[in-house]
Amino acid sequence: MLLKVKILDIFSGKPIVVLNKKNFEELEIIGNRIKIVYKNHEIIASVNISESLIEKGEIGVYRDVAQNYSIKNGELVEVVESGIPESLTAIKNKIAGRRLDYKEIYSIIKDVVSGNLSDIEITALIVALNSFGMTIDEAANFARAMVETGRTLKLDSKIILDKHSVGGLSGDKTSLILVPLIASLGYKIPKTSSRAITSAAGTADKASVLMNVNLTIEEMEEVVKKTNGCLVWGGTLHLAPADDVFIRYEYVIGLDPFLLPSIMAKKKAVGATHVVIDIPTGRGVKVKSIGDAEILAKDFLEISKLLGIKVNICVTQGIQPIGYTIGPALEAKEALEFLMRKKDVRDLKNKTINIANALLNLVKRGNYFRAVENALNSNKAERKMREIIEAQGGNKNIKPSDIEIAKYYEDFVSEKDGFVLWIDSGSLNQVARILGCPKDLSAGIVLYKKIGDKVKIGDKILRLYSNSENRIDLALKVVKENGSIGIGKEYDMLIKILREAKMPKKYFILER
Amino acid sequence: MLLKVKILDIFSGKPIVVLNKKNFEELEIIGNRIKIVYKNHEIIASVNISESLIEKGEIGVYRDVAQNYSIKNGELVEVVESGIPESLTAIKNKIAGRRLDYKEIYSIIKDVVSGNLSDIEITALIVALNSFGMTIDEAANFARAMVETGRTLKLDSKIILDKHSVGGLSGDKTSLILVPLIASLGYKIPKTSSRAITSAAGTADKASVLMNVNLTIEEMEEVVKKTNGCLVWGGTLHLAPADDVFIRYEYVIGLDPFLLPSIMAKKKAVGATHVVIDIPTGRGVKVKSIGDAEILAKDFLEISKLLGIKVNICVTQGIQPIGYTIGPALEAKEALEFLMRKKDVRDLKNKTINIANALLNLVKRGNYFRAVENALNSNKAERKMREIIEAQGGNKNIKPSDIEIAKYYEDFVSEKDGFVLWIDSGSLNQVARILGCPKDLSAGIVLYKKIGDKVKIGDKILRLYSNSENRIDLALKVVKENGSIGIGKEYDMLIKILREAKMPKKYFILER
Repeated sequence: MLLKVKILDIFSGKPIVVLNKKNFEELEIIGNRIKIVYKNHEIIASVNISESLIEKGEIGVYRDVAQNYSIKNGELVEVVESGIPESLTAIKNKIAGRRLDYKEIYSIIKDVVSGNLSDIEITALIVALNSFGMTIDEAANFARAMVETGRTLKLDSKIILDKHSVGGLSGDKTSLILVPLIASLGYKIPKTSSRAITSAAGTADKASVLMNVNLTIEEMEEVVKKTNGCLVWGGTLHLAPADDVFIRYEYVIGLDPFLLPSIMAKKKAVGATHVVIDIPTGRGVKVKSIGDAEILAKDFLEISKLLGIKVNICVTQGIQPIGYTIGPALEAKEALEFLMRKKDVRDLKNKTINIANALLNLVKRGNYFRAVENALNSNKAERKMREIIEAQGGNKNIKPSDIEIAKYYEDFVSEKDGFVLWIDSGSLNQVARILGCPKDLSAGIVLYKKIGDKVKIGDKILRLYSNSENRIDLALKVVKENGSIGIGKEYDMLIKILREAKMPKKYFILER
Repeated sequence: MLLKVKILDIFSGKPIVVLNKKNFEELEIIGNRIKIVYKNHEIIASVNISESLIEKGEIGVYRDVAQNYSIKNGELVEVVESGIPESLTAIKNKIAGRRLDYKEIYSIIKDVVSGNLSDIEITALIVALNSFGMTIDEAANFARAMVETGRTLKLDSKIILDKHSVGGLSGDKTSLILVPLIASLGYKIPKTSSRAITSAAGTADKASVLMNVNLTIEEMEEVVKKTNGCLVWGGTLHLAPADDVFIRYEYVIGLDPFLLPSIMAKKKAVGATHVVIDIPTGRGVKVKSIGDAEILAKDFLEISKLLGIKVNICVTQGIQPIGYTIGPALEAKEALEFLMRKKDVRDLKNKTINIANALLNLVKRGNYFRAVENALNSNKAERKMREIIEAQGGNKNIKPSDIEIAKYYEDFVSEKDGFVLWIDSGSLNQVARILGCPKDLSAGIVLYKKIGDKVKIGDKILRLYSNSENRIDLALKVVKENGSIGIGKEYDMLIKILREAKMPKKYFILER
């Protein structure tokens, strides 16, 4: 059926068209989907119905669809019944708990990337995968299909290093140090990262304080060729784009069955040959115990073999935030100060050096601690960072004091003498989001004390920054109510007494 | 935020509004939902965005939402951020495989009925329930919550009988006989049924050939008070309306975890005190084996105790269609002929009598076979059927020849001598749908032979009726390709040889 396009000034984020009731009935649509054939595109869209806004012979096209495919008002498009997506049989097999082969997995990922599947079908897949799990073989096939259906980075190099943290640890700015450090040693490290999803600051948010992180894949290639490294947002690069779709659903229902294939697909798509996976462990992060980290590590090691990537896993401390800052601008500032040797941050330094050593050991066995420390102490890493900043359109001469921090702040002070017994990284993450992170880059938290530090009544423990005084009040209340920080005698054992059953607030950490 | 309504002539079947981009940003919406406060309604809606079609200060409301709540153009409505639905925590608990209590279950069902949950959330619940199952306790609580959130039938009677078939058996017109039969014996039987979802004809479709089945709950009460029985479509009565929502999702993904609570909720909502559940068993129906039927029966018996309903389960033969017709009009005609004693249909008669006896035994132990046969043979049941037809606005003097059958037909004839070895009820169901069922009431299939009948080359086996000659050609092809009917020597053992792996077509039977 040939229909004349009428563009409607509505954005819905999903492909939707409006048909006149009579045309709709003529098409005998099974379900709710049609296929628009336009130039060399086949667009699957959901159908809404109109009686007069859209006349017989017309098709209402939402503005986002029109923009994505450059469809113009008044053009004719061919509209046909879309049938049932090929991959639906495969999804139903997974719902029934059956193993999927590569053909089935590819059909799913292709339909996900093409927008052929409805919310119902994608959710069903995610929940079924969560219930039944996937074999390593299936995970590797999902990763392959994700790479296959997206773009890839082409660097002319036999050794390409990369690092990934199974995230969620507040204040973890390791990548901002590791990337220039490794690049300064002569290795290519084309780092892509995500913006915060459930956390207060993703690596991309932090880097965006210092440089432009919204690069195209061609721009990214150029930066890496010039400087050996980069710090780029992965969201618009179309590397393994299926994951960018899945993550929107996973966020809503609090599940992340694609953790393993998604991480590995993103690494494979940039051509990484040697990768360190950092698994922070602790109460307030994604992986709670060392045992859980080892189970996850086993999966990573097996899938990486199937994908031909050499991997070392670093199980690291995740019992408190890394360094003394949480929030994009505050963390970028701390990283810059650290690189400039203006500030010593012992846990950040120790973690970075260990991960760098594990990464270099993948290429060739050895002890690299001294070489790595030298690169830091000689400001080699700082100079490399400034090169990267410049290549990504930032100010290469940026000083820590140039970085803008939110205008209001208030301190949380201790009401007791004693020691810091715990710092709940998950709770501080929530507090930072209340303060405005990640949207407001300049909001966040400064920590004056870490676990084990001695504290006196009236000592400052945290400083909360926000551009809204209301948000600071609310955040302070949450710090106190949640017990984000525990202060007491070294031998104080009691965390809390529960007097009535209530549904505990569990933080869902989607950060991978 | 107060916004001025601008009604948009778009129907989407879901609550959707359009906000101006600036208002959208001001509202700081988490996710994609807002709440409209209008008179005494709170309407949760998904948000689309516009830059000029909807100006700042306006809210675009799709026509179906406006109609449902009688919202007028130009009225002011209050729009607020909707927050996260209360039931989402409960859904996440089920996704994690945990048992839900009544409070959690009620919160889910309430939000489902109010339209507060998105496709993603409802699908996640259904798939998780399918993977993890539900305990009998949870099933009873789902049934209770479904009744609680809908309307109920109020009949002033201590004994209210009902019958339900865990459906999918083609040609099963038992309810059309059983309802007038039981009503003619002086018992109340307020039967509601569904229209076909995956089958060729639901009981409501069949009854609609003889009478109006779209009654309100008040009209239904009146019919039952007058005649003791009724044959009504359950879809618009708002009895356990949550199920009417779930079924739309279950259809798409081919799952039916609500089978047990949905059936029992519908029975509870009409006030049924004594119920027979018929479980046909065979290759082409929902329940494949007698063992499976017994497992399901156990669940029905346990949940009915929790809900205070007396239940007998009849496990019945489901290896071939009941009677000699498939399709709404053909089946209504056969039922009428049977009630009028113009046609003897042995399996239909035997099944109806057995179910009637099992139902009456729930009220008081005894042998009712003779009483039931007498009611059939004396035309008491026929007279009662005509009373019901009249009370539901049909022609009480209707003759079988008054019933309109599709204008084209073609016969499927045997190419072999031998016996009918099998009749695949699921495959014939598909064939009847190709012929136009259930939308075209007059389409369908007449069977000339049943299993065990002797057949000669050239004998008519099936007659296919449709209002489209193309559909008949396609249907005939499917009968032959699928091997819907097996004819051969009595001792022929081979069904088919598979020479290459292919994904078998499994029929999903949602009919309960």
